[in-house]
Amino acid sequence: MLRNFARTTERLRDTGGAKWAIHQRCRERQQAGADIIELTIGEPDIPTDSALIEVAARAMRDGRTGYSNGRGEPDLIDALVERYRRRRTTINDNNVLCFPGTQTALFATMLGLTGEGDGVLVGDPFYATYEGVIRASGAHPVSVPLRKNNNFRLCAGDLERAITPDCRVLLLNAPHNPSGAILDNGTIHAISVLCEKYDLWMVCDEVYEELVFEGRFCSPFDNEAFADRVIALSSISKSCAAPGFRSGWAIGPADFCDAILPLSEAMLFGNQPFIADMTAYALRNPPSTAMRMRADYQRRSLIIANALDEIEGITPFRPEAGMFILADVTGLGLSGERFAWSLLEAGVAVMPGSSFGDNGDDLIRLSLTKSDEEINDACHRIKRFVEERL
Amino acid sequence: MLRNFARTTERLRDTGGAKWAIHQRCRERQQAGADIIELTIGEPDIPTDSALIEVAARAMRDGRTGYSNGRGEPDLIDALVERYRRRRTTINDNNVLCFPGTQTALFATMLGLTGEGDGVLVGDPFYATYEGVIRASGAHPVSVPLRKNNNFRLCAGDLERAITPDCRVLLLNAPHNPSGAILDNGTIHAISVLCEKYDLWMVCDEVYEELVFEGRFCSPFDNEAFADRVIALSSISKSCAAPGFRSGWAIGPADFCDAILPLSEAMLFGNQPFIADMTAYALRNPPSTAMRMRADYQRRSLIIANALDEIEGITPFRPEAGMFILADVTGLGLSGERFAWSLLEAGVAVMPGSSFGDNGDDLIRLSLTKSDEEINDACHRIKRFVEERL
Repeated sequence: MLRNFARTTERLRDTGGAKWAIHQRCRERQQAGADIIELTIGEPDIPTDSALIEVAARAMRDGRTGYSNGRGEPDLIDALVERYRRRRTTINDNNVLCFPGTQTALFATMLGLTGEGDGVLVGDPFYATYEGVIRASGAHPVSVPLRKNNNFRLCAGDLERAITPDCRVLLLNAPHNPSGAILDNGTIHAISVLCEKYDLWMVCDEVYEELVFEGRFCSPFDNEAFADRVIALSSISKSCAAPGFRSGWAIGPADFCDAILPLSEAMLFGNQPFIADMTAYALRNPPSTAMRMRADYQRRSLIIANALDEIEGITPFRPEAGMFILADVTGLGLSGERFAWSLLEAGVAVMPGSSFGDNGDDLIRLSLTKSDEEINDACHRIKRFVEERL
Repeated sequence: MLRNFARTTERLRDTGGAKWAIHQRCRERQQAGADIIELTIGEPDIPTDSALIEVAARAMRDGRTGYSNGRGEPDLIDALVERYRRRRTTINDNNVLCFPGTQTALFATMLGLTGEGDGVLVGDPFYATYEGVIRASGAHPVSVPLRKNNNFRLCAGDLERAITPDCRVLLLNAPHNPSGAILDNGTIHAISVLCEKYDLWMVCDEVYEELVFEGRFCSPFDNEAFADRVIALSSISKSCAAPGFRSGWAIGPADFCDAILPLSEAMLFGNQPFIADMTAYALRNPPSTAMRMRADYQRRSLIIANALDEIEGITPFRPEAGMFILADVTGLGLSGERFAWSLLEAGVAVMPGSSFGDNGDDLIRLSLTKSDEEINDACHRIKRFVEERL
């Protein structure tokens, strides 16, 4: 028998589906007829704007179905340059690479920047797929604790304490999943100075850029002084409620883009031209989707936060952005994981914080992407569950 | 300055766009108004069937725009199981993984099977992106010469002579790009026996399966005896003239699929559900596209072969399948590369054989994806070029 897979598969064995076990169990039981309110994944509950869909459909019919350019279709690159020039005037065609989603942009970026033995600094808790993305190249995550008492905002001091000599990249996610934390310009600057001091790349996952409830989106990308070490990643998945179109990008230094391009070509051989056309249209004619989601998700985060505040033993953390709210359940005497599995029996599926790193054990994450009615119902079920069963 | 990219980028530096330099020059000069017949890349000259496009458009409008399953959408997996069960009855859901195109399927497969120092046997000449795909994991290509006097069909004897102790995978491409060679069942069996003897995975790129002009498509996949080491890769890009939809798959042993899935999820986080729907429809209701292409490409291959036969110093090799024809130009006293660059000045763009491995230096590759008129015109231009300028 030959069952010798590559070491890459060993590194990734426990980084994938296992983290979504509760979500999968929820779906199975829903299909079997169970009444479960699903607050697990962050799938927008608003449809993709029909104008975007019509652009894609028209482009398909117009024959935009051939092979695409490896960097991205020229018109989409132009649209991205226009957009990112509003943030930094020096952006040009050769700073852009297009990918089928932020996940792929991140995967290619990490494979292009890190290898065996390299450390990648990442705020913990962190988005569930980061571990796999980091480990794929042979690198390893280096946790920077995100503190509850700072509402999970990354602190420069914690970052500097976590840096080890093998660290090459800071993977920065602001607005942050799972916490919804944003960073202010002062913190961003302090972090950027540290990255310069320790010669670290800054890889910025900015998919929640357009879902900031209050306050201002800030990013290291916007400061020309650090431009040679910053790569910004994003997509239309969240901002346009279009996750199933898999359309994302990386904006970084020209030599980074040049170095990554052959990898991207070997990995993808381009993307869908008609989706590129739709993405370019969306960038130039932003639909009202993000505005609606911002209002919906903020309102729902407050519904949940206010409801959980009433439950002894649970502490919600009000998010500043994004699609999720975290809550600490250790006051109930059990871990986030045990709480989440038990709660599933009571008809609410949430993610255990442990899916988001070692620093998430105390937590559960609730998605804000269900209707207010379902959110309210879920809060009642949680309250009843805690009162009657714990 | 920090310009420390990962070693992966060094390995891939010269494997990407450089191979397509003539194609790119051709496009630039065409845009500047030059009259060049482009016989470089294999982009189908038939549009994607409109029935498929309408399925995709309808699915988009019906909200099939959310996140997809990591292995692939259930209905597409079913359609693939139906199709591949016609070739091997034991195929099941857990033998299937979906990817955005054969290229990505191949990249993920190689990253899952090989690592630093591993050898990947591959017939030389080989498809231009193979080198990058092989080198991405740290593996290296191990060339198996494909002989002109055998019309570029892989021989088991040549394969066995090429095997080194570090070899872990045979990357088999039949029907073959660039030569259009197919393999008969006897050869396939001899090769499979060798792969068993030397404990090699067989990764079979079968994108030209439906473009066999005469004779029968054969594959190691179809023999249950070797099922535990065979992975078949394909897509709708060629068979449905739908390269811009990026819809492909890998069919392999269940434990292979399980091992690769976390890698695929980290790399992609799923594909487009509406494209999955279209692909499932195409598999169950194959359009006449492949039949038309078979007839067109075979006819054009004969037009070119007959025309080049008339030119002293050029020897065409009649393909048995696919979208290309190879010709040996060394009788003219120059390499395929020098010939191709010179010919560009005479208004015909072809690929130099050197883009397809060390064993391709004598060759040029001509695409069959232009109209008969253009193909005829190109042949005249080549004849005039050879007679007047060489």
